Amino acid sequence: MRVAVFGGDGFVGWPTCLHLSNAGHDVTIVDNLSRRRIDTELGVQSLTPMDSIQERLRIWKQVSGKTIRFELLDIATEYTRVKLWLDEFRPDALVHLAQQRAAPYSMKSDRLKTYTVNNNTNATHNLLSALVELGLDTHFIHLGTMGVYGYSDIGATIPEGYLTVNVRLDDGQEVSRKILYPADPGSVYHMTKCMDQIMFAFYANNDQIRATDLHQGIVWGTHTDQTRRHEQLVNRFDYDGDYGTVLNRFLIQAAIKHPLTVHGTGGQTRAFIHIQDSVRCIELALNNPPARGERPKIFNQMTEVFRIRDLAKLVSELSGVEIVYLPNPRKEASENDMKVANQQFLDLGLEPITLQVGMLEELVHVAGKYAHRIDASKIPAQSGWTADLQSRISTIVDFNPAQRKV
Amino acid sequence: MRVAVFGGDGFVGWPTCLHLSNAGHDVTIVDNLSRRRIDTELGVQSLTPMDSIQERLRIWKQVSGKTIRFELLDIATEYTRVKLWLDEFRPDALVHLAQQRAAPYSMKSDRLKTYTVNNNTNATHNLLSALVELGLDTHFIHLGTMGVYGYSDIGATIPEGYLTVNVRLDDGQEVSRKILYPADPGSVYHMTKCMDQIMFAFYANNDQIRATDLHQGIVWGTHTDQTRRHEQLVNRFDYDGDYGTVLNRFLIQAAIKHPLTVHGTGGQTRAFIHIQDSVRCIELALNNPPARGERPKIFNQMTEVFRIRDLAKLVSELSGVEIVYLPNPRKEASENDMKVANQQFLDLGLEPITLQVGMLEELVHVAGKYAHRIDASKIPAQSGWTADLQSRISTIVDFNPAQRKV
Repeated sequence: MRVAVFGGDGFVGWPTCLHLSNAGHDVTIVDNLSRRRIDTELGVQSLTPMDSIQERLRIWKQVSGKTIRFELLDIATEYTRVKLWLDEFRPDALVHLAQQRAAPYSMKSDRLKTYTVNNNTNATHNLLSALVELGLDTHFIHLGTMGVYGYSDIGATIPEGYLTVNVRLDDGQEVSRKILYPADPGSVYHMTKCMDQIMFAFYANNDQIRATDLHQGIVWGTHTDQTRRHEQLVNRFDYDGDYGTVLNRFLIQAAIKHPLTVHGTGGQTRAFIHIQDSVRCIELALNNPPARGERPKIFNQMTEVFRIRDLAKLVSELSGVEIVYLPNPRKEASENDMKVANQQFLDLGLEPITLQVGMLEELVHVAGKYAHRIDASKIPAQSGWTADLQSRISTIVDFNPAQRKV
Repeated sequence: MRVAVFGGDGFVGWPTCLHLSNAGHDVTIVDNLSRRRIDTELGVQSLTPMDSIQERLRIWKQVSGKTIRFELLDIATEYTRVKLWLDEFRPDALVHLAQQRAAPYSMKSDRLKTYTVNNNTNATHNLLSALVELGLDTHFIHLGTMGVYGYSDIGATIPEGYLTVNVRLDDGQEVSRKILYPADPGSVYHMTKCMDQIMFAFYANNDQIRATDLHQGIVWGTHTDQTRRHEQLVNRFDYDGDYGTVLNRFLIQAAIKHPLTVHGTGGQTRAFIHIQDSVRCIELALNNPPARGERPKIFNQMTEVFRIRDLAKLVSELSGVEIVYLPNPRKEASENDMKVANQQFLDLGLEPITLQVGMLEELVHVAGKYAHRIDASKIPAQSGWTADLQSRISTIVDFNPAQRKV
């Protein structure tokens, strides 16, 4: 298939491109390289040394014999160029990962809130509008987030996108309806993914766009079968307070023997998935598109749920590093349960990599291997969800590992 | 109260400003005058001769002794200026009407689809973000649309914003939840209003923004008590295929003795409200803000429902002009019933002006009075909802009244 991967230079995008290219698809990356610009802006860098996209693609060609093309394009601001490019490339499917994807970054300042909304909303809508205008029947695969569901525990398993509810009619009868799960975003970033859902529903209905939305959990892990094939194909590994996921930050702390910092009680339950499973899921979605006229297909792209403190315990046991508890900069419930349906991907053959099994490799072969590149001052959370919570951040920054002279 | 009216130069905005200014509020209009630019772009104009905003405000001062200030500002693209201005003016309340508001215009081309999404989404979000950044407790009143509910008849009265549903838990018990009514937009324009709702819900929850969303029906009527005070204070009257509402187009057709053109069977039921009631509702909303921490207050700002063909019959009976049926360029159900709850405004004292009573004035004192200014070639619908439906438009254009040499 001809596949366009928008955001193919990012953390999920890069291994997705290699995976699909290796599977025989004709892949083109379209990216504005904004993730690298944000690294520069924040003064942070991937733990793993990351080459330019052009160099990465040269190595991939050398290792695999396969070509992945690269197009420098900002899909949120260059609508006409997006349309011209799509008209030329005419992809069978596109994978849309070209969005600002860090909740803390989206809450850092009003500049970044407005950037996130402007960028993410226009990116999605420009692609949809161009497909309709060109009359292309491209399968539109989008990376959503489990965060669209919110984290309030209502005592029911989170279904895959649609919720069956009963509504009372005027005549007193109750009827059953399958509705989009009520949105409950916890950050500006998550809010944009909820808004994306409305756009997919509209364009699927009005123009028969075939859309798949993948509500992904927190991705962990660095290597996939393809990124392992050459040192210079390595995926990025973020550990800073904005882009680093909770697990990555635990791993980094363990590697430098710094206490694992849990925000709040650590009672927050979250969904997780390994990067190798993430790219497999995208491939499964690619091979199982919705029919034309069908409403958007929604998958929960996650394989396990964990409480943050249990995750910390797991890392602590493997590394021997202690756990400390710090104030929580996020506005969220301190404790929540979560059960998530993910039967669709399991039915399609997904065999998940578990944290219990995969964590050690991350600790030794990634965090340990590159420990000399760690800038410990970048680990703490920097973004409060409100002005009030921002003031708590000072407490966290006071606990800056950098001051411990690691 | 200090009230900022964003979009105060528009059809609802202008009489809102006069109404609130007359009621003693300190009103400033913030507008980028885009509605006038769109008139220029489409080569259409208001049936009623409309002066510049500066001239209108000069007349208002002369007639009422009251000052309404005007700030030329594009809130969708000039975030920093929006913030500086809000910081200076520090309104107690703002009325946000600064959005592209015509469904047909939003479906006209990909340029206008992307414009509508970019403009409407950033306009709302920039205001929300600036209020949070400045720590202002401004009551945020937004004009939504009945179109967020969709027009599929489910046999239940449309509630005011929130729907009570029953959800089955994992243990088999059913619990009742009050959720935002599931969005079902029928055009790109309506889609943006659904996306707005998600932003209000998020910011009310995360930052205690006090938000009111007014889901308005189709507005009819031209004059309010205040616009009547001077010829040059007259409100705009759109009758073109994009911005003209169905009723306005019937009135214009009646005025020039052209058959009333109904799209489809005319079985579509819609909600209506007179412009005088519309501005009264905005004032009622202004005087009844939600508490801080409360979720957005949602009102259905409409007073009557009518089937389009019944509306045509009403105009036909008053004017003696026949009705003809043309293909429908919109993607929608050909027939629908609709019952709408609007008890909140009635409880606050709203006494609706009915179509049965108010229509004759419109026919004689507006459409009749300015009939010499009618450009009949602008009346037909020009925008198909899909490429397929667009092709039907030719049939409609063939039925162009201009060719009848009116």
